[in-house]
Amino acid sequence: MALTQVSSNKRCDGYQKVFEHDSSELKCKMKFAIYLPPKAESSKCPVLYSLSGLSCTEQNFITKAGSQQAASEHGIIYINISTFTVYSGCNIEGEDESWDLGTGAGFYVNATQEPWKTNYHMYSYVTEELPRLINSNFPNLGKYKACIYLTLHRLKLFSGYLGPDKSTWELYDATVMAESYSGPELDILIDQGRDGLFLSSSQLRPDNLIAAFSKQKIPVVFRLQQGYDHSYYFIFSFIIDHIKHHAKYLNA
Amino acid sequence: MALTQVSSNKRCDGYQKVFEHDSSELKCKMKFAIYLPPKAESSKCPVLYSLSGLSCTEQNFITKAGSQQAASEHGIIYINISTFTVYSGCNIEGEDESWDLGTGAGFYVNATQEPWKTNYHMYSYVTEELPRLINSNFPNLGKYKACIYLTLHRLKLFSGYLGPDKSTWELYDATVMAESYSGPELDILIDQGRDGLFLSSSQLRPDNLIAAFSKQKIPVVFRLQQGYDHSYYFIFSFIIDHIKHHAKYLNA
Repeated sequence: MALTQVSSNKRCDGYQKVFEHDSSELKCKMKFAIYLPPKAESSKCPVLYSLSGLSCTEQNFITKAGSQQAASEHGIIYINISTFTVYSGCNIEGEDESWDLGTGAGFYVNATQEPWKTNYHMYSYVTEELPRLINSNFPNLGKYKACIYLTLHRLKLFSGYLGPDKSTWELYDATVMAESYSGPELDILIDQGRDGLFLSSSQLRPDNLIAAFSKQKIPVVFRLQQGYDHSYYFIFSFIIDHIKHHAKYLNA
Repeated sequence: MALTQVSSNKRCDGYQKVFEHDSSELKCKMKFAIYLPPKAESSKCPVLYSLSGLSCTEQNFITKAGSQQAASEHGIIYINISTFTVYSGCNIEGEDESWDLGTGAGFYVNATQEPWKTNYHMYSYVTEELPRLINSNFPNLGKYKACIYLTLHRLKLFSGYLGPDKSTWELYDATVMAESYSGPELDILIDQGRDGLFLSSSQLRPDNLIAAFSKQKIPVVFRLQQGYDHSYYFIFSFIIDHIKHHAKYLNA
Protein backbone atom coordinates (compact mmCIF):
# COMPACT_ATOMS: atom_id res chain seq x y z
CA MET A 1 0.00 0.00 0.00
CA ALA A 2 1.45 3.37 -1.00
CA LEU A 3 2.29 5.98 1.63
CA THR A 4 2.15 9.72 0.97
CA GLN A 5 4.34 11.93 3.16
CA VAL A 6 2.28 14.82 4.57
CA SER A 7 5.01 16.52 6.60
CA SER A 8 8.55 16.11 7.92
CA ASN A 9 10.18 18.22 10.63
CA LYS A 10 13.52 17.80 12.32
CA ARG A 11 13.08 17.37 16.07
CA CYS A 12 15.51 16.30 18.80
CA ASP A 13 18.08 15.22 16.18
CA GLY A 14 15.58 12.91 14.45
CA TYR A 15 12.55 13.46 12.25
CA GLN A 16 8.87 13.75 13.10
CA LYS A 17 6.92 12.69 10.00
CA VAL A 18 3.24 12.29 9.13
CA PHE A 19 2.01 9.91 6.41
CA GLU A 20 -1.34 9.27 4.75
CA HIS A 21 -2.58 6.11 3.06
CA ASP A 22 -5.73 4.27 1.94
CA SER A 23 -6.72 1.74 4.57
CA SER A 24 -8.16 -1.56 3.35
CA GLU A 25 -9.59 -2.38 6.80
CA LEU A 26 -11.23 1.00 7.35
CA LYS A 27 -12.11 1.71 3.72
CA CYS A 28 -11.08 5.35 4.06
CA LYS A 29 -7.96 7.52 4.21
CA MET A 30 -5.85 7.13 7.34
CA LYS A 31 -3.00 9.17 8.81
CA PHE A 32 -0.25 8.16 11.20
CA ALA A 33 2.75 9.93 12.70
CA ILE A 34 6.19 8.36 13.00
CA TYR A 35 9.16 9.70 14.93
CA LEU A 36 12.49 8.43 13.60
CA PRO A 37 15.29 8.87 16.14
CA PRO A 38 18.82 9.74 14.87
CA LYS A 39 19.93 6.15 15.52
CA ALA A 40 17.46 4.93 12.83
CA GLU A 41 19.66 6.49 10.13
CA SER A 42 22.35 3.91 10.62
CA SER A 43 20.91 0.96 12.55
CA LYS A 44 17.78 -0.97 13.44
CA CYS A 45 15.50 0.41 16.14
CA PRO A 46 12.53 -1.02 18.04
CA VAL A 47 9.06 0.42 17.57
CA LEU A 48 6.60 1.73 20.14
CA TYR A 49 2.91 2.21 19.21
CA SER A 50 0.81 4.73 21.09
CA LEU A 51 -2.95 4.87 20.74
CA SER A 52 -4.64 8.18 21.49
CA GLY A 53 -8.02 8.58 23.08
CA LEU A 54 -11.27 10.22 22.09
CA SER A 55 -11.31 13.11 19.61
CA CYS A 56 -7.56 13.06 18.92
CA THR A 57 -5.85 13.53 15.60
CA GLU A 58 -2.22 12.46 15.20
CA GLN A 59 -1.28 16.09 16.00
CA ASN A 60 -2.36 15.99 19.66
CA PHE A 61 0.26 13.50 20.64
CA ILE A 62 3.12 14.87 18.53
CA THR A 63 2.65 18.47 19.67
CA LYS A 64 1.63 17.99 23.31
CA ALA A 65 3.05 14.76 24.76
CA GLY A 66 6.74 15.64 24.61
CA SER A 67 7.73 12.09 23.65
CA GLN A 68 10.48 12.92 21.17
CA GLN A 69 13.26 13.78 23.62
CA ALA A 70 13.16 10.36 25.29
CA ALA A 71 12.53 8.50 22.00
CA SER A 72 15.60 10.23 20.54
CA GLU A 73 17.73 9.39 23.56
CA HIS A 74 16.70 5.71 23.75
CA GLY A 75 16.68 5.09 19.97
CA ILE A 76 12.97 4.25 19.80
CA ILE A 77 10.79 4.64 16.68
CA TYR A 78 7.53 6.08 17.96
CA ILE A 79 4.25 5.69 16.08
CA ASN A 80 0.97 7.33 16.95
CA ILE A 81 -2.21 7.38 14.96
CA SER A 82 -5.15 9.64 14.28
CA THR A 83 -8.34 8.30 15.77
CA PHE A 84 -10.35 11.35 14.89
CA THR A 85 -9.83 11.90 11.19
CA VAL A 86 -9.87 8.18 10.52
CA TYR A 87 -13.58 7.94 9.98
CA SER A 88 -14.27 11.41 8.74
CA GLY A 89 -14.43 10.32 5.10
CA CYS A 90 -16.99 7.56 5.58
CA ASN A 91 -20.11 9.74 5.50
CA ILE A 92 -22.14 7.55 7.84
CA GLU A 93 -25.42 9.09 8.92
CA GLY A 94 -25.19 10.51 12.44
CA GLU A 95 -21.40 10.04 12.64
CA ASP A 96 -20.77 13.60 13.91
CA GLU A 97 -23.60 13.84 16.42
CA SER A 98 -21.81 12.57 19.52
CA TRP A 99 -18.27 13.07 20.83
CA ASP A 100 -18.03 9.51 22.08
CA LEU A 101 -19.70 7.55 19.27
CA GLY A 102 -18.83 7.92 15.58
CA THR A 103 -15.99 10.06 14.21
CA GLY A 104 -13.34 10.62 16.85
CA ALA A 105 -14.43 7.58 18.87
CA GLY A 106 -12.95 4.42 17.40
CA PHE A 107 -12.31 2.68 20.76
CA TYR A 108 -10.04 0.21 18.92
CA VAL A 109 -12.80 -2.33 18.46
CA ASN A 110 -14.18 -4.10 15.37
CA ALA A 111 -17.79 -2.94 15.20
CA THR A 112 -20.42 -5.60 14.58
CA GLN A 113 -23.46 -3.30 14.48
CA GLU A 114 -24.99 -1.10 11.78
CA PRO A 115 -24.21 1.53 10.61
CA TRP A 116 -20.61 1.14 11.84
CA LYS A 117 -19.62 -2.38 10.85
CA THR A 118 -18.33 -1.62 7.33
CA ASN A 119 -15.67 0.91 8.36
CA TYR A 120 -15.13 0.74 12.11
CA HIS A 121 -12.44 -1.99 12.21
CA MET A 122 -9.89 -0.20 14.32
CA TYR A 123 -8.88 -3.34 16.22
CA SER A 124 -7.79 -5.08 13.01
CA TYR A 125 -6.19 -1.87 11.77
CA VAL A 126 -3.91 -1.38 14.78
CA THR A 127 -3.09 -5.05 15.34
CA GLU A 128 -2.65 -6.15 11.70
CA GLU A 129 -2.81 -3.62 8.87
CA LEU A 130 -0.72 -0.84 10.45
CA PRO A 131 2.17 -3.03 11.72
CA ARG A 132 2.31 -4.72 8.27
CA LEU A 133 2.41 -1.33 6.57
CA ILE A 134 5.10 0.00 8.91
CA ASN A 135 7.26 -3.11 8.59
CA SER A 136 7.18 -3.07 4.81
CA ASN A 137 7.87 0.67 4.43
CA PHE A 138 10.55 1.40 7.02
CA PRO A 139 13.64 -0.75 6.46
CA ASN A 140 15.36 0.21 9.71
CA LEU A 141 12.89 -1.42 12.02
CA GLY A 142 14.35 -3.96 14.39
CA LYS A 143 12.55 -5.80 17.14
CA TYR A 144 8.79 -5.31 17.08
CA LYS A 145 6.70 -5.42 20.22
CA ALA A 146 3.29 -3.88 20.57
CA CYS A 147 3.37 -1.82 23.75
CA ILE A 148 0.03 -0.15 24.06
CA TYR A 149 -1.25 2.15 26.77
CA LEU A 150 -4.70 1.14 27.84
CA THR A 151 -7.29 3.01 29.74
CA LEU A 152 -10.53 1.37 30.63
CA HIS A 153 -13.69 2.96 29.39
CA ARG A 154 -16.44 0.51 30.24
CA LEU A 155 -18.85 2.90 28.61
CA LYS A 156 -22.37 2.16 27.66
CA LEU A 157 -21.36 3.40 24.23
CA PHE A 158 -19.73 0.08 23.48
CA SER A 159 -23.23 -1.17 22.85
CA GLY A 160 -23.41 1.10 19.80
CA TYR A 161 -20.53 -0.73 18.14
CA LEU A 162 -20.85 -4.22 19.61
CA GLY A 163 -24.50 -4.67 20.48
CA PRO A 164 -26.14 -5.24 23.87
CA ASP A 165 -24.53 -8.65 24.57
CA LYS A 166 -21.79 -7.70 27.05
CA SER A 167 -19.87 -10.93 26.54
CA THR A 168 -18.78 -9.58 23.12
CA TRP A 169 -17.27 -6.53 24.86
CA GLU A 170 -14.83 -8.67 26.79
CA LEU A 171 -12.48 -9.18 23.87
CA TYR A 172 -11.49 -5.54 24.33
CA ASP A 173 -11.46 -5.44 28.12
CA ALA A 174 -7.98 -5.34 29.67
CA THR A 175 -9.31 -6.65 32.99
CA VAL A 176 -10.84 -9.71 31.34
CA MET A 177 -7.63 -10.26 29.35
CA ALA A 178 -5.56 -10.08 32.54
CA GLU A 179 -7.82 -12.58 34.30
CA SER A 180 -7.04 -15.27 31.70
CA TYR A 181 -3.47 -14.28 30.83
CA SER A 182 -1.00 -17.12 30.38
CA GLY A 183 1.76 -15.69 28.10
CA PRO A 184 5.36 -14.65 28.83
CA GLU A 185 6.27 -12.81 32.03
CA LEU A 186 5.10 -9.18 32.15
CA ASP A 187 6.42 -5.99 33.77
CA ILE A 188 3.61 -3.46 33.83
CA LEU A 189 3.76 0.25 34.63
CA ILE A 190 0.49 2.20 34.97
CA ASP A 191 0.11 5.87 35.80
CA GLN A 192 -3.32 7.20 36.66
CA GLY A 193 -4.23 10.83 37.48
CA ARG A 194 -6.06 10.76 40.81
CA ASP A 195 -8.10 13.91 40.32
CA GLY A 196 -9.57 13.54 36.84
CA LEU A 197 -13.25 13.51 36.00
CA PHE A 198 -13.32 10.03 34.42
CA LEU A 199 -11.91 8.36 37.52
CA SER A 200 -14.19 10.12 39.99
CA SER A 201 -17.24 9.30 37.87
CA SER A 202 -16.18 5.60 37.83
CA GLN A 203 -15.79 5.44 34.06
CA LEU A 204 -12.23 4.27 34.68
CA ARG A 205 -11.79 1.26 36.94
CA PRO A 206 -8.08 0.63 37.49
CA ASP A 207 -8.98 -1.16 40.74
CA ASN A 208 -10.57 -3.99 38.75
CA LEU A 209 -7.42 -4.34 36.67
CA ILE A 210 -5.18 -4.35 39.74
CA ALA A 211 -7.37 -7.04 41.34
CA ALA A 212 -6.98 -9.23 38.23
CA PHE A 213 -3.18 -8.75 38.26
CA SER A 214 -3.02 -9.67 41.95
CA LYS A 215 -5.07 -12.82 41.44
CA GLN A 216 -2.85 -13.85 38.55
CA LYS A 217 0.37 -12.82 40.36
CA ILE A 218 1.32 -10.50 37.48
CA PRO A 219 3.74 -7.85 38.79
CA VAL A 220 2.53 -4.28 38.31
CA VAL A 221 3.61 -0.82 39.38
CA PHE A 222 0.47 1.30 39.68
CA ARG A 223 0.97 4.99 40.50
CA LEU A 224 -2.11 6.97 41.44
CA GLN A 225 -0.79 10.49 40.91
CA GLN A 226 -2.19 13.07 43.32
CA GLY A 227 -3.37 16.34 41.76
CA TYR A 228 -3.19 15.15 38.14
CA ASP A 229 -6.10 14.86 35.71
CA HIS A 230 -6.63 12.96 32.43
CA SER A 231 -5.09 15.60 30.11
CA TYR A 232 -1.94 15.93 28.04
CA TYR A 233 -0.41 17.81 30.98
CA PHE A 234 -0.56 14.48 32.79
CA ILE A 235 0.82 12.49 29.83
CA PHE A 236 3.66 14.99 29.34
CA SER A 237 4.58 14.66 33.03
CA PHE A 238 5.16 10.88 32.88
CA ILE A 239 5.90 10.00 29.23
CA ILE A 240 9.65 9.91 29.88
CA ASP A 241 9.21 7.22 32.57
CA HIS A 242 7.12 5.11 30.19
CA ILE A 243 9.48 5.32 27.23
CA LYS A 244 12.37 4.43 29.55
CA HIS A 245 10.38 1.48 30.91
CA HIS A 246 9.75 0.09 27.41
CA ALA A 247 13.27 0.85 26.18
CA LYS A 248 14.72 -1.35 28.94
CA TYR A 249 13.16 -4.39 27.23
CA LEU A 250 13.11 -3.24 23.60
CA ASN A 251 16.83 -2.45 23.59
CA ALA A 252 17.84 -5.48 25.66
CA MET B 1 -3.91 45.21 40.00
CA ALA B 2 -6.20 42.19 40.50
CA LEU B 3 -5.41 38.87 38.83
CA THR B 4 -8.10 36.37 37.82
CA GLN B 5 -7.01 32.72 37.57
CA VAL B 6 -8.18 31.25 34.23
CA SER B 7 -6.80 27.71 34.67
CA SER B 8 -4.50 25.58 36.82
CA ASN B 9 -3.14 22.13 35.90
CA LYS B 10 -0.63 19.98 37.70
CA ARG B 11 2.35 19.29 35.47
CA CYS B 12 5.77 17.78 36.23
CA ASP B 13 5.11 18.04 39.99
CA GLY B 14 4.37 21.76 39.77
CA TYR B 15 1.49 23.82 38.45
CA GLN B 16 0.89 25.40 35.06
CA LYS B 17 -1.46 28.34 35.58
CA VAL B 18 -2.97 31.04 33.37
CA PHE B 19 -4.06 34.45 34.69
CA GLU B 20 -5.95 37.40 33.23
CA HIS B 21 -5.79 41.07 34.26
CA ASP B 22 -6.53 44.60 33.07
CA SER B 23 -3.36 46.17 31.76
CA SER B 24 -2.83 49.87 32.43
CA GLU B 25 -0.12 50.12 29.75
CA LEU B 26 -2.10 48.36 27.05
CA LYS B 27 -5.55 49.55 28.08
CA CYS B 28 -7.05 46.12 27.45
CA LYS B 29 -7.29 42.66 29.04
CA MET B 30 -4.05 40.69 29.08
CA LYS B 31 -3.24 37.03 29.78
CA PHE B 32 -0.03 35.42 30.95
CA ALA B 33 0.98 31.87 31.85
CA ILE B 34 3.11 31.01 34.87
CA TYR B 35 4.70 27.66 35.65
CA LEU B 36 5.37 27.18 39.37
CA PRO B 37 7.89 24.38 40.01
CA PRO B 38 7.44 22.17 43.11
CA LYS B 39 10.30 24.01 44.82
CA ALA B 40 8.21 27.23 44.79
CA GLU B 41 5.89 25.74 47.42
CA SER B 42 8.53 25.97 50.10
CA SER B 43 11.25 28.35 48.94
CA LYS B 44 12.12 31.27 46.70
CA CYS B 45 12.76 30.60 43.01
CA PRO B 46 14.17 32.73 40.19
CA VAL B 47 11.97 33.77 37.27
CA LEU B 48 12.49 33.32 33.55
CA TYR B 49 10.43 35.35 31.06
CA SER B 50 9.84 34.01 27.58
CA LEU B 51 8.39 36.16 24.83
CA SER B 52 6.59 34.38 22.00
CA GLY B 53 6.60 35.48 18.39
CA LEU B 54 3.95 36.44 15.88
CA SER B 55 0.39 35.14 16.21
CA CYS B 56 0.97 33.28 19.49
CA THR B 57 -1.36 33.09 22.46
CA GLU B 58 0.03 31.95 25.83
CA GLN B 59 -1.16 28.41 24.89
CA ASN B 60 1.39 27.87 22.10
CA PHE B 61 4.33 27.91 24.43
CA ILE B 62 2.77 25.98 27.31
CA THR B 63 1.47 23.15 25.13
CA LYS B 64 4.25 22.85 22.53
CA ALA B 65 7.59 23.97 23.92
CA GLY B 66 8.06 21.27 26.55
CA SER B 67 9.62 23.71 29.02
CA GLN B 68 8.04 22.37 32.21
CA GLN B 69 10.26 19.31 32.73
CA ALA B 70 13.44 21.37 32.90
CA ALA B 71 11.79 24.24 34.83
CA SER B 72 10.58 21.69 37.40
CA GLU B 73 14.00 20.09 37.69
CA HIS B 74 15.94 23.36 38.03
CA GLY B 75 13.37 25.12 40.25
CA ILE B 76 12.65 27.91 37.78
CA ILE B 77 9.39 29.92 37.67
CA TYR B 78 8.61 30.26 33.98
CA ILE B 79 6.44 33.05 32.60
CA ASN B 80 5.21 33.41 29.05
CA ILE B 81 2.73 35.84 27.67
CA SER B 82 0.07 36.03 25.02
CA THR B 83 1.02 38.34 22.19
CA PHE B 84 -1.97 37.47 20.09
CA THR B 85 -4.97 38.04 22.32
CA VAL B 86 -3.40 41.08 23.91
CA TYR B 87 -4.75 43.55 21.44
CA SER B 88 -7.89 41.78 20.41
CA GLY B 89 -10.10 43.94 22.64
CA CYS B 90 -8.87 47.28 21.36
CA ASN B 91 -11.07 47.47 18.26
CA ILE B 92 -8.63 49.46 16.18
CA GLU B 93 -9.63 49.80 12.56
CA GLY B 94 -7.68 47.39 10.35
CA GLU B 95 -6.15 45.52 13.32
CA ASP B 96 -7.03 42.08 11.92
CA GLU B 97 -6.07 42.67 8.28
CA SER B 98 -2.45 41.55 8.43
CA TRP B 99 -0.70 38.70 10.24
CA ASP B 100 2.37 40.83 10.93
CA LEU B 101 0.84 44.20 11.84
CA GLY B 102 -1.94 44.67 14.40
CA THR B 103 -3.38 41.90 16.60
CA GLY B 104 -0.89 39.07 17.01
CA ALA B 105 2.05 41.29 16.09
CA GLY B 106 3.16 43.32 19.12
CA PHE B 107 6.90 43.12 18.38
CA TYR B 108 7.55 44.31 21.95
CA VAL B 109 7.87 47.94 20.92
CA ASN B 110 6.10 51.09 22.15
CA ALA B 111 4.25 52.34 19.07
CA THR B 112 4.52 56.05 18.29
CA GLN B 113 2.25 56.08 15.22
CA GLU B 114 -1.52 56.22 14.77
CA PRO B 115 -3.69 54.20 15.12
CA TRP B 116 -1.47 52.03 17.36
CA LYS B 117 0.07 54.45 19.83
CA THR B 118 -2.68 54.35 22.47
CA ASN B 119 -2.56 50.58 23.11
CA TYR B 120 0.59 49.13 21.56
CA HIS B 121 2.98 49.63 24.48
CA MET B 122 4.31 46.11 24.70
CA TYR B 123 7.86 47.25 25.52
CA SER B 124 6.71 49.02 28.68
CA TYR B 125 4.40 46.12 29.50
CA VAL B 126 7.09 43.43 29.45
CA THR B 127 9.85 45.51 31.02
CA GLU B 128 7.82 47.33 33.69
CA GLU B 129 4.14 46.48 34.25
CA LEU B 130 4.39 42.69 34.05
CA PRO B 131 7.44 42.25 36.33
CA ARG B 132 5.81 44.61 38.89
CA LEU B 133 2.60 42.58 38.74
CA ILE B 134 4.42 39.27 39.09
CA ASN B 135 6.57 40.47 41.98
CA SER B 136 3.62 41.77 43.95
CA ASN B 137 1.38 38.71 43.43
CA PHE B 138 3.75 35.75 43.84
CA PRO B 139 5.44 35.79 47.23
CA ASN B 140 7.90 33.01 46.45
CA LEU B 141 9.87 34.86 43.86
CA GLY B 142 13.57 35.10 44.54
CA LYS B 143 16.20 36.58 42.31
CA TYR B 144 14.81 38.38 39.29
CA LYS B 145 16.67 38.58 36.04
CA ALA B 146 15.08 39.24 32.70
CA CYS B 147 16.40 36.59 30.33
CA ILE B 148 14.68 37.12 27.05
CA TYR B 149 15.06 35.18 23.82
CA LEU B 150 15.44 37.55 20.94
CA THR B 151 15.08 36.98 17.28
CA LEU B 152 15.73 39.74 14.84
CA HIS B 153 12.97 40.75 12.53
CA ARG B 154 14.23 43.85 10.78
CA LEU B 155 10.91 44.00 9.02
CA LYS B 156 9.58 46.88 7.07
CA LEU B 157 6.51 46.56 9.28
CA PHE B 158 8.32 48.34 12.06
CA SER B 159 7.51 51.50 10.15
CA GLY B 160 3.83 50.91 10.93
CA TYR B 161 4.45 51.22 14.64
CA LEU B 162 7.48 53.52 14.78
CA GLY B 163 7.31 55.59 11.62
CA PRO B 164 9.76 55.85 8.73
CA ASP B 165 12.72 57.24 10.72
CA LYS B 166 14.87 54.12 11.16
CA SER B 167 16.88 55.63 14.00
CA THR B 168 13.80 55.16 16.26
CA TRP B 169 13.84 51.42 15.46
CA GLU B 170 17.27 51.00 17.00
CA LEU B 171 15.99 51.05 20.58
CA TYR B 172 14.57 47.59 19.86
CA ASP B 173 17.43 46.21 17.80
CA ALA B 174 19.59 43.65 19.60
CA THR B 175 22.49 44.25 17.20
CA VAL B 176 22.51 47.98 17.94
CA MET B 177 22.25 47.25 21.68
CA ALA B 178 25.21 44.86 21.48
CA GLU B 179 27.31 47.42 19.63
CA SER B 180 27.08 49.88 22.54
CA TYR B 181 26.88 47.39 25.43
CA SER B 182 28.88 48.26 28.53
CA GLY B 183 27.13 46.39 31.39
CA PRO B 184 28.17 43.30 33.41
CA GLU B 185 29.84 40.31 31.75
CA LEU B 186 27.50 38.22 29.57
CA ASP B 187 27.31 34.55 28.64
CA ILE B 188 25.09 34.24 25.59
CA LEU B 189 23.64 31.10 24.01
CA ILE B 190 21.83 31.38 20.66
CA ASP B 191 20.27 28.55 18.69
CA GLN B 192 19.17 29.22 15.13
CA GLY B 193 17.47 26.73 12.76
CA ARG B 194 19.54 26.70 9.58
CA ASP B 195 16.77 25.66 7.20
CA GLY B 196 13.88 27.95 8.07
CA LEU B 197 12.19 30.35 5.70
CA PHE B 198 12.92 33.53 7.69
CA LEU B 199 16.66 32.92 7.65
CA SER B 200 16.89 32.05 3.96
CA SER B 201 14.84 35.12 3.03
CA SER B 202 17.21 37.31 5.13
CA GLN B 203 14.52 38.49 7.54
CA LEU B 204 16.68 37.14 10.34
CA ARG B 205 20.28 38.38 10.46
CA PRO B 206 22.13 36.57 13.24
CA ASP B 207 25.39 37.30 11.38
CA ASN B 208 24.98 41.01 12.19
CA LEU B 209 24.53 40.20 15.87
CA ILE B 210 27.56 37.90 15.92
CA ALA B 211 29.65 40.61 14.25
CA ALA B 212 28.64 43.07 16.98
CA PHE B 213 29.53 40.56 19.73
CA SER B 214 32.91 39.90 18.13
CA LYS B 215 33.72 43.61 17.89
CA GLN B 216 32.73 44.09 21.53
CA LYS B 217 34.50 40.90 22.68
CA ILE B 218 31.26 39.59 24.20
CA PRO B 219 31.45 35.77 24.46
CA VAL B 220 28.69 33.96 22.59
CA VAL B 221 27.85 30.36 21.68
CA PHE B 222 25.95 30.47 18.40
CA ARG B 223 24.64 27.14 17.10
CA LEU B 224 23.32 27.09 13.54
CA GLN B 225 21.31 23.88 13.67
CA GLN B 226 21.29 21.91 10.42
CA GLY B 227 17.88 20.66 9.25
CA TYR B 228 15.83 22.69 11.75
CA ASP B 229 13.30 25.39 10.92
CA HIS B 230 11.67 28.23 12.94
CA SER B 231 8.84 26.15 14.47
CA TYR B 232 8.00 24.81 17.93
CA TYR B 233 9.65 21.52 16.89
CA PHE B 234 12.87 23.51 16.90
CA ILE B 235 12.13 25.23 20.23
CA PHE B 236 11.18 21.90 21.86
CA SER B 237 14.47 20.38 20.69
CA PHE B 238 16.66 22.94 22.48
CA ILE B 239 14.57 24.42 25.31
CA ILE B 240 16.23 22.14 27.88
CA ASP B 241 19.68 23.47 26.98
CA HIS B 242 18.45 27.06 27.38
CA ILE B 243 16.74 26.57 30.73
CA LYS B 244 19.87 24.80 31.99
CA HIS B 245 22.01 27.69 30.71
CA HIS B 246 19.91 30.27 32.59
CA ALA B 247 19.57 28.11 35.72
CA LYS B 248 23.36 28.00 36.08
CA TYR B 249 23.35 31.74 36.84
CA LEU B 250 19.88 32.16 38.38
CA ASN B 251 20.50 29.45 40.97
CA ALA B 252 24.13 30.44 41.64
